[in-house]
Amino acid sequence: MNRVIGIIGGMGPLATCDLMTKMIHFTDADTDQQHVRLCVDSNTNIPDRTEAILHNGADPVPEMVKSALRLQGMGAEVLVMSCNTAHYFYDEVVKFVEIPFLNMIDQTALYLQRKGVERAAVLATDGTRDSGIFERAFQKAGIQTIYPSREHQKVLMSLVYDYVKAGNFALDELPLWDIIHQLRESGAQQLVLGCTELPLAFQKIGCTEGVVDPTEILALSALHFVGAKVKKEFDWE
Amino acid sequence: MNRVIGIIGGMGPLATCDLMTKMIHFTDADTDQQHVRLCVDSNTNIPDRTEAILHNGADPVPEMVKSALRLQGMGAEVLVMSCNTAHYFYDEVVKFVEIPFLNMIDQTALYLQRKGVERAAVLATDGTRDSGIFERAFQKAGIQTIYPSREHQKVLMSLVYDYVKAGNFALDELPLWDIIHQLRESGAQQLVLGCTELPLAFQKIGCTEGVVDPTEILALSALHFVGAKVKKEFDWE
Repeated sequence: MNRVIGIIGGMGPLATCDLMTKMIHFTDADTDQQHVRLCVDSNTNIPDRTEAILHNGADPVPEMVKSALRLQGMGAEVLVMSCNTAHYFYDEVVKFVEIPFLNMIDQTALYLQRKGVERAAVLATDGTRDSGIFERAFQKAGIQTIYPSREHQKVLMSLVYDYVKAGNFALDELPLWDIIHQLRESGAQQLVLGCTELPLAFQKIGCTEGVVDPTEILALSALHFVGAKVKKEFDWE
Repeated sequence: MNRVIGIIGGMGPLATCDLMTKMIHFTDADTDQQHVRLCVDSNTNIPDRTEAILHNGADPVPEMVKSALRLQGMGAEVLVMSCNTAHYFYDEVVKFVEIPFLNMIDQTALYLQRKGVERAAVLATDGTRDSGIFERAFQKAGIQTIYPSREHQKVLMSLVYDYVKAGNFALDELPLWDIIHQLRESGAQQLVLGCTELPLAFQKIGCTEGVVDPTEILALSALHFVGAKVKKEFDWE
């Protein structure tokens, strides 16, 4: 029987498909049967995470826990969750589950630590930035967190909401390369794309070096955890 | 609470993501919460369907049933399965489930019937073609099935296995437009892309008119079944 990864999804639905696609793409398999089994609850009943953190919105924890327990019941051996912001609630959810639950933010910090990175920039939405989740994980791993200027932060919010989420890819209207250069000049050795909308935008403008996609780190971490065979070119162990 | 679609997946894993992506893309939603909930078992323990049909390989029914029952337990209100060939076993699996189970092949036949199509070509692997699943469903719907010549069938098998599955998109090496023209000259009003690898190839060569992708039909059928709001441009009711 194949090993089983459980995905608490729906935050958003497309980010869930993106994580699955990356896991499949990274796996060294010639047949369907050589892939890991994936159990997914794309649970769109989970309330908005940013609303909960910044504006006292509905608590997302109960629905996240329900998904976690259902996936555990489906046979999942390890849980993952494909939303950066949702990890603000990780400590509350993990108490309810009896199987390992990989933390995307911690895995990203570990990856940077292994690569010898001492200063990393976090590009994320206001909710993720203000929640401090990356900063705390990086601090534990001995990594200094660098943020974009407040002016550039507004550009990133617009990039996520007015451009990528709205399907508008006229990205040369935005000073993205200015943001990248400024962060690198501030000493950032890697740029962490801490929002599932960002990797697509950075790919479109041709910025693929020195950037880290936490969804990719999580996909690889989960595959490693269950002992899946990963394609050589993606294996960073 | 959002309505729930269950997907018996893993046949193959990428075709499962493709079905999910299409459901999400077709839904008229501005927020995560406006999407339907998707429960997915990408069950790569299901043995190869073509092997079972053509070469007396391991029976895929027990694993398919296990996935169906698990999804039912997760709260799925309707089941779907994103593999044409797997529908050869539909009648055996449906006996075990207590919730509606939409049949991709029947839904495709109904769609063609509604569009007034009388003759449709089926482009599929040898396994799907020889199993006669499309032909039987089309016959019930009063639609005549047209197949590619045996020589062209070999080209399609090569297209699926040597090109798309192998990631080779040098498709101008293949006489695909000859196949399309010959089928249309034989009276085919629509070309049914009865293998999940084919829509990608047909898109790449620019053949998007007069072709039907059963995965799209299934995505729309399932969304309609649970009463999801579908974007106007994709609504074929």
